[in-house]
Amino acid sequence: MKVKPLSDRVLIKTLEPEQESKKGGIIIPDTAKEKPQQGEVIEVGPGRVTEEGKKIEMEVKKGDKVLYGKYSGTEVTIDGVEYLIMRESDILAIIG
Amino acid sequence: MKVKPLSDRVLIKTLEPEQESKKGGIIIPDTAKEKPQQGEVIEVGPGRVTEEGKKIEMEVKKGDKVLYGKYSGTEVTIDGVEYLIMRESDILAIIG
Amino acid sequence: MKVKPLSDRVLIKTLEPEQESKKGGIIIPDTAKEKPQQGEVIEVGPGRVTEEGKKIEMEVKKGDKVLYGKYSGTEVTIDGVEYLIMRESDILAIIG
Amino acid sequence: MKVKPLSDRVLIKTLEPEQESKKGGIIIPDTAKEKPQQGEVIEVGPGRVTEEGKKIEMEVKKGDKVLYGKYSGTEVTIDGVEYLIMRESDILAIIG
Amino acid sequence: MKVKPLSDRVLIKTLEPEQESKKGGIIIPDTAKEKPQQGEVIEVGPGRVTEEGKKIEMEVKKGDKVLYGKYSGTEVTIDGVEYLIMRESDILAIIG
Amino acid sequence: MKVKPLSDRVLIKTLEPEQESKKGGIIIPDTAKEKPQQGEVIEVGPGRVTEEGKKIEMEVKKGDKVLYGKYSGTEVTIDGVEYLIMRESDILAIIG
Amino acid sequence: MKVKPLSDRVLIKTLEPEQESKKGGIIIPDTAKEKPQQGEVIEVGPGRVTEEGKKIEMEVKKGDKVLYGKYSGTEVTIDGVEYLIMRESDILAIIG
Repeated sequence: MKVKPLSDRVLIKTLEPEQESKKGGIIIPDTAKEKPQQGEVIEVGPGRVTEEGKKIEMEVKKGDKVLYGKYSGTEVTIDGVEYLIMRESDILAIIG
Repeated sequence: MKVKPLSDRVLIKTLEPEQESKKGGIIIPDTAKEKPQQGEVIEVGPGRVTEEGKKIEMEVKKGDKVLYGKYSGTEVTIDGVEYLIMRESDILAIIG
Repeated sequence: MKVKPLSDRVLIKTLEPEQESKKGGIIIPDTAKEKPQQGEVIEVGPGRVTEEGKKIEMEVKKGDKVLYGKYSGTEVTIDGVEYLIMRESDILAIIG
Repeated sequence: MKVKPLSDRVLIKTLEPEQESKKGGIIIPDTAKEKPQQGEVIEVGPGRVTEEGKKIEMEVKKGDKVLYGKYSGTEVTIDGVEYLIMRESDILAIIG
Repeated sequence: MKVKPLSDRVLIKTLEPEQESKKGGIIIPDTAKEKPQQGEVIEVGPGRVTEEGKKIEMEVKKGDKVLYGKYSGTEVTIDGVEYLIMRESDILAIIG
Repeated sequence: MKVKPLSDRVLIKTLEPEQESKKGGIIIPDTAKEKPQQGEVIEVGPGRVTEEGKKIEMEVKKGDKVLYGKYSGTEVTIDGVEYLIMRESDILAIIG
Repeated sequence: MKVKPLSDRVLIKTLEPEQESKKGGIIIPDTAKEKPQQGEVIEVGPGRVTEEGKKIEMEVKKGDKVLYGKYSGTEVTIDGVEYLIMRESDILAIIG
């Protein structure tokens, strides 16, 4: 099944904490601040259209590893794999 | 009876969970996050007109299968069939 | 007495549930979601003027049957008949 | 004493419910919805200036009878007569 | 000491209720609605600059008597006299 | 140490109430309204850039004495002296 | 591991209070007001794109020492070092 996000939304395959540990790169400290999570961009929308009728290009592309806030996006499970759909503005950074 | 949505609204025929199971594609996990639902686009509005007087083209079209947030839209039942009317911005993705 | 709505407002003659039943078209299910109601457009305003000084054309016209949210608009009774005044953006769809 | 409203504000002479009854036109039903009231436009401001520096023309003019929400505007009493000052956007319709 | 308001702010010398009574013009009724107060414009700012970089001209000028909401503005006392600084958008009307 | 504010922010050296008394100009009455405070502009940012990509010129400059709301800005102490950093829009007026 | 912030976000290496004391420059007083913290800009995003499709240039660059609000940004730890990702608009000033 294919999922094509609308506007500036992206489909993200979440990386499990265990996977994060194996990669060893980013460790999330245990504080009151919002903790980001890692994922991989699987699909990107065509980009947002502004009030001026201008299309804003997406900054992320398929395959990018990204950081996003822990409570960002909407969960979907496709063919048994967990994904998130969120707006690009909820993505903090590209990593790798 | 015909329903013609205004602005950037769409009329969506909701797919029952049973129907979703038969299709087997998207399984919604039982978590605290918002859970999307599937539906089919039956009618689309002409598109939103911006402050600049520009018409923003719709991204979805009749027949598209879409994902949307569980609490999106307004319920209507037409000739015994349940539908939702929502703004296109409440639709997360096109699937299929 | 004549009522001429301002900006993008419309004057709507509400259709009573009994009248709706007679027409048989749209049945509102008993759920927690907002339930739309039917009405007929009696008068329309000249349209909204944007920050750019552009007039946005109205999508509805006199005589249109429309769906709107149950709690939309302001009630007025003119010559014993109940009406609602609401912004066009509160109208979900044209039906018929 | 003269009162010249600023921007898109209007000075309205409220019509007492008794006066409304005499005119017989609009009867406000006793429901939970916001109930509009009638008044006469006594003075109008020059119109709102947008972010673009454009002046938006007023839709109402001196002498117009108008409907407005019950809790709209700010009360002032000039020479013993009660008035309201409100923005034109708080006016629902011109009647008569 | 001189006070030069910024942007679209104005410096207003409040008129005491006693002064208002002497003038006899505006009497504020005792209701739940916001009650305006009178004052005299002492200084005006240069005007607001919009997102477009356009300067919006001030509608009020030095010497204008104005009506404003009771809780508008910030109090300052200069050389023993009480003033208010508020944005022009908080001024309801020019009187006199 | 040098502090260069970003965007339309300004660095302000707060004037202590004692200093205010010596100057004798502005006395803050004891009411429920917000009470402004005095300070001197030490550094100004380059100005805000609008959505149109236009730079809005600063109205205040180094050395200006200004009034601002009591709870405006963020406190910093540099080399033992207390300063505030706030947006220019939080400044009410230039005094002197 | 490399972190490339999106839009107008920046990656900041937080300076510990101990480090701040050694530098001796900015001492944060113990009051109810928000207290800024120091950090060093490690990476900057490409800049925000406005509704007009214009890119707003970043004001900060790699290596800048900056002040920001205590509760700004999202914490990430990369290779054992604590960082913050925040929007440039959360940065108060460049110091040094």
